[in-house]
Amino acid sequence: MSTLFVRTLRDDPSDAEVDSHKLLVRAGYIRRTAPGIYTWLPLGLLVLRRLEAIVREEMNAEGAQEVLFPALLPREPYEKTGRWEEYGPNLFRLKDRKEADYLLAPTHEEVFTLLVKDMYSSYKDLPVTLYQIQTKYRDEARPRAGVIRAREFVMKDAYSFDLTDEGLDRSYMAMRRAYENIFRRVGLPYVICSAVSGAMGGSRSEEFLFPCAIGEDTFVQSAGGYAANTEAVTTLPAAPVDFSAVPLPEVVDTPDAPTIDSLVDVFNSVRPANDRPWNAADTLKNVVVTATHPDGTRELLIIGVPGDREVDMKRVEAALSPAQVEMATPEELAEYPELVPGYIGPQVIGPQSPRRKDLPEGERMPLRYLLDPHVVRGSAWITGANKKNQHVFHLVYGRDFEADGTIEAVEVRSGDEAPDGSGPLSISRGIEIGHIFQLGRKYAKALGLTVLDNNGKATVVTMGSYGIGVSRLLAALAEHNHDDAGLIWPRAVAPATVQILTTGKDDAVFDTAERLAAGLEEAGIDVLLDDRRKVSAGVKFADFELIGVPYAVVVGRGLKRGVVEIRNRREGTSVEVPVDNALAEVSRTVDN
Amino acid sequence: MSTLFVRTLRDDPSDAEVDSHKLLVRAGYIRRTAPGIYTWLPLGLLVLRRLEAIVREEMNAEGAQEVLFPALLPREPYEKTGRWEEYGPNLFRLKDRKEADYLLAPTHEEVFTLLVKDMYSSYKDLPVTLYQIQTKYRDEARPRAGVIRAREFVMKDAYSFDLTDEGLDRSYMAMRRAYENIFRRVGLPYVICSAVSGAMGGSRSEEFLFPCAIGEDTFVQSAGGYAANTEAVTTLPAAPVDFSAVPLPEVVDTPDAPTIDSLVDVFNSVRPANDRPWNAADTLKNVVVTATHPDGTRELLIIGVPGDREVDMKRVEAALSPAQVEMATPEELAEYPELVPGYIGPQVIGPQSPRRKDLPEGERMPLRYLLDPHVVRGSAWITGANKKNQHVFHLVYGRDFEADGTIEAVEVRSGDEAPDGSGPLSISRGIEIGHIFQLGRKYAKALGLTVLDNNGKATVVTMGSYGIGVSRLLAALAEHNHDDAGLIWPRAVAPATVQILTTGKDDAVFDTAERLAAGLEEAGIDVLLDDRRKVSAGVKFADFELIGVPYAVVVGRGLKRGVVEIRNRREGTSVEVPVDNALAEVSRTVDN
Repeated sequence: MSTLFVRTLRDDPSDAEVDSHKLLVRAGYIRRTAPGIYTWLPLGLLVLRRLEAIVREEMNAEGAQEVLFPALLPREPYEKTGRWEEYGPNLFRLKDRKEADYLLAPTHEEVFTLLVKDMYSSYKDLPVTLYQIQTKYRDEARPRAGVIRAREFVMKDAYSFDLTDEGLDRSYMAMRRAYENIFRRVGLPYVICSAVSGAMGGSRSEEFLFPCAIGEDTFVQSAGGYAANTEAVTTLPAAPVDFSAVPLPEVVDTPDAPTIDSLVDVFNSVRPANDRPWNAADTLKNVVVTATHPDGTRELLIIGVPGDREVDMKRVEAALSPAQVEMATPEELAEYPELVPGYIGPQVIGPQSPRRKDLPEGERMPLRYLLDPHVVRGSAWITGANKKNQHVFHLVYGRDFEADGTIEAVEVRSGDEAPDGSGPLSISRGIEIGHIFQLGRKYAKALGLTVLDNNGKATVVTMGSYGIGVSRLLAALAEHNHDDAGLIWPRAVAPATVQILTTGKDDAVFDTAERLAAGLEEAGIDVLLDDRRKVSAGVKFADFELIGVPYAVVVGRGLKRGVVEIRNRREGTSVEVPVDNALAEVSRTVDN
Repeated sequence: MSTLFVRTLRDDPSDAEVDSHKLLVRAGYIRRTAPGIYTWLPLGLLVLRRLEAIVREEMNAEGAQEVLFPALLPREPYEKTGRWEEYGPNLFRLKDRKEADYLLAPTHEEVFTLLVKDMYSSYKDLPVTLYQIQTKYRDEARPRAGVIRAREFVMKDAYSFDLTDEGLDRSYMAMRRAYENIFRRVGLPYVICSAVSGAMGGSRSEEFLFPCAIGEDTFVQSAGGYAANTEAVTTLPAAPVDFSAVPLPEVVDTPDAPTIDSLVDVFNSVRPANDRPWNAADTLKNVVVTATHPDGTRELLIIGVPGDREVDMKRVEAALSPAQVEMATPEELAEYPELVPGYIGPQVIGPQSPRRKDLPEGERMPLRYLLDPHVVRGSAWITGANKKNQHVFHLVYGRDFEADGTIEAVEVRSGDEAPDGSGPLSISRGIEIGHIFQLGRKYAKALGLTVLDNNGKATVVTMGSYGIGVSRLLAALAEHNHDDAGLIWPRAVAPATVQILTTGKDDAVFDTAERLAAGLEEAGIDVLLDDRRKVSAGVKFADFELIGVPYAVVVGRGLKRGVVEIRNRREGTSVEVPVDNALAEVSRTVDN
C-alpha cells in the first residue's frame, strides 16, 4: 500500500449514482477518462483479469477455442448483413487515410463468419465454437453507472458454427451451461430470461439477468418457472367478445376531460353504465409514436392501448426493431390535421381511414394503426371522437373500427398471466450479464458461409452467438457484494485474499507483517500488505473495508501478547490467533 | 489437432514478402482481416500471451505497476500537447454521436500524465512507473510484413514519473534493464541504438533493434561501442578549410552533363585540376524537398550535399520532425523560376539570395537552404550555375555562398567515422522491438502535472516513456527462429513444448499418444497432440515442422519394438527411447 498506485476517496464522485460505480471509483479500481470510457487502475485490473480467467476456463471446458480479433473492422461485411445501417448512431464509424470506411466493432458476428468461411469447408470441420475476450465499442446515447453501461468495454463473445439445427441446439446448450458455471463460480445470482434478439437477428435468445434494483432491464417471472425480459413477454391471446348487445356508437361532449380519470368521471356522470361504473380500462388511448428506420426514414404510427395501462416504449421499440422509437412531436402531429391531440379516435385512422383510401398507392407511408393485444376483437370502448372536447362510446373493435395489426405495447403488470399459463407474473429489475442467441443462418447466408455436407452438397451453416460483458459483470459483482463501508469481494475474484494491516509504530509490527505476507504468498495466498508508516490505524481499517479484500490480518498492539487478529470482511467477525501460528490459521480460515 | 482451429497452408500467401509473415500465416497463427489489421488464431494467441506474460513479469520485477487505459480517447489532451496535429494522417480520428472528437491512441503519454495528476500531489508519491499491455492504433501509410508494421497492434507502453532528472535517469535505466531481460529471456539478439525522439519529443532516447536483413531501420555500430539508428547519427564537425588559394568562381558551359558522373567527366576534360582528377565528392548537389508541417503548411527547402552521397530522406525527415518530407514536385519547383532543375546552385538561394531580400518580412516562407555537415566551411565546389547547361566551379562556401543552417541529410556510409571517435561505422538493418525515451517535462508542462516538493513548492514532474511492440516482437522472433520448413519457437514462448505425432492406424498408437500427452500435461509440459486419424504421417511431420513446436514425440511403428522417438525441431536430431520411460525421457530432454 505504500507504493501501490491507488488513492482511496472518502467522498462519492459527483457523477456516480449507483453504489458499484461510487465504490469502484472511491476504492481506486476505475477512473473515468471520458463519458462512458474508463481506465482500470491496478486493483481493478487484477479483478478484471481474474474474472476473465474464470470465463476463459469455463469456455475452454466446453471446448470453445480462443482467438483474438481486431476491434477496428472494415465496413463491407457489416454492410452485407445490414448492421452497418441498423446499428444507427450506436456504432462508432471512422475513415482511414484512404477514406475507406471502418467501424469499432460492437460485436463480431460478421468477421467470425468470414474467418470460418476462410478456414473450413467440410461438414467434418463442424461443429466449432470460437470466442475472444476483447474490447468492444458502443456509442451509447446514455452511458451510465460506470462500467455497467460504458462506451468502451470488455466482452467475451463466442460464436458457434453447426451444420444442423440440432447441432446448434447442442452448441447453444453448451454455452448456456458454461454461463451458468461462470456465474455460479463468482457467486452471482442470475435468472435466465427469454429475450428478443434485436439487431442481432435470429430466433431463440435468452438473457442472463442479475436481479438488482438499479438494473436497466425489467423482467418477469412466474411461480411456474416462466421468466422473460418484459420486451419478450407476449400477451395470452383472448377470444373475441360478443358485441351483439352493444348499442351503436354515440358521440358525447366532454369539455372537462383532459385526463383518463376525468373522462371516466364525465361518462359515469352523463352516460352511466347499467351494470357497473365505467373505469379506465373501458377507455381506448391512442398514442402517436415516430419510428426511425435504419435507412433514416421516419414513420408515424398510432398505437391503441387500454386507458388503464401505460405504453412501455422499450417494448414498443423491441417490437419495431431495428427501428428506434420515440413519442411523436407536436410538429409531426400537426402534419396530420385529422389527428386532434387528446381526442384521437380510431374512426379516422387504420385501414378504413379516408387518408388511406384517398392517397395514391405508395405515395407516402400510410399512418399505420396498431393495437395492443389487450384490445380484444369485439370489445367496446370510450375513446376520442377526433374533435376537440368530444369523445365517443360504444365504439366496437371489428364493427366500428379496424387496425393494421397488433403490437406488444403496454407495460407488463405484476399479476398479469404468464403466456405459457404458468401463473401470474411478478416483476423485477436486473442487470444483463449475459446473452445467448440462436442466430440461425442469417449471417452465414449474407456472407456465403457454406460447407459441403456428406453428399458433397453446399449447405449453409447455422450459427449461435454468446456474449458476456466482462467489465459489466465486475460492476454487477460490486453491486451485489458491498455494504455502507465499501466493497466485499468474493474470494474467486478479489484483488487479494488477505490484507495485512499494521497498527502502531513498532518496527516489530512491520517486520512481523512482512514475514507473514511473504509466508502467505509462498503458500499461494495473495496478499495486500498495508505497510504505510505514517497512516493512522483508522485510515487503514477504512481502506481495508473500502477496498473489499475478504480477510484482514491485523498486526499491532496484540503483538506484545503474541497474537494477531484475523478479520472477516463480510461477516464483520474477528478472532485472535497466536502469531506463531498465524500462517496456518490464516490459510485454514481463507480455505474454508 | 483433430479439433484445433487451424488449417496449415502449403503455399505462401500472395501478399506476404518476409519469411515471418509467410510462416505465421501458413502455420495458422495469424490471418489478415483488413490491410495492416490481423486476427490472432489459437496458436498465435498462445504465443502472444506467453510473450505478454514475460513482458509483464519483467516490468513488475522493476516495480512498474499495470493499469489499462481505453484505446478510444478524447481529443483535448492530445490537442494540448500538439500531438493531435503532429501525428498527421497516422492518427485514426473519429467523432462520436455528439460530434465530439476522439482518436484511437497510438501511445498514451497524455492520459497517463493526467491520471497521475488526478491521483498524486506530493513528491512523496514519486517515483512511480505505470504500464499497460494494450491495443494501439496507427494509420500507417504502408503497413507491411504482417504484424511487423500493422495498423492495430499490441503494445506494452510504460511511463515513469519523477521529481528530478536523476530520478528520471534511474527510472529510465530500470526500464532499460527490464528490456534487456525480456529480450534475453526470449533469446532475441538486440542492439541498443541512440535514436531520435520524433513526434514523442524529449531528450535522450534509445531503440532496441533486432539485427535482421528485412528490418526497416538502418543502424550503425563501431568497434568502439557506438551504436545508433542512422537517423540519430551525427557527423563529426570538421574544421573550416583554408580557401585563400582557391581561384574565383568560373562558370563553364556543360551541355552534356545531365548526371554527376558526366559532370565530373566534363570538368576533367575542359577544366582539369592540377593535383588530381575531379570526382563526385567535388560536386555540390542541391536537392529540393517539401516539408509538410503539422498545421498543413508546406515549405520548400533546398538541401546541399556532396555529389558522391545520396540524400537519406528518413534522416532528413527525422531532422525536420514533426514535418513530413518528400521530394518537391515539378509543379512546386515551377513556382520558383530562379530554380533551374538540374542546375540549381547556391548563389541564388540561401540568406543572400535576391528573393530573400526582396520579399517583405514575413510575407511568405523563405526558401531555406540547409547544408549537410559534409559540406565544410571554406570548401570549394563544382555546382549548378542556375542556367540550363551551365555549371560553376571554385565556388567556396563562406566566400561565394551562405546557408541558413546545417542538416543531417546524406546517407551514412560504412566506414564513416563514429561521432564519438570510436572508429569507423558498419551498417546493418534491424527491426525496432523497443524504444525508451526520456521525455523530460514536455507533457507534464503541457498538461499541468506538478507535485509539491519538500518545501511545499509546486514542481513540474519529469517523465519517461517506454514501449515494446509485443505483436511485432512475436514476428521478430518468428523471423529469427525459422528454417525453410517452418517456424522453430524458443521454448519460452512456444505454443506448446512437445507435439505428439501419431503414425499408422493402430489403436495402440493413439492410446499411447493420449496417455503420454496426459502424463506430460500433468508434469506441467504443454502438449499439442496430433490425434488425426485420416491424415498421413507425411502431413503430420510437415505440420510439426511448420508450426514450430520445439520437440516432437513420434508414436508409431516403433511402438511394436517398445520405443517412441523424440525429435528436436531446431537440431533436426532424433533419438529413440523406450515407451515405458518416455515420460521421464521427454521431461529430461525438454528441461535441458
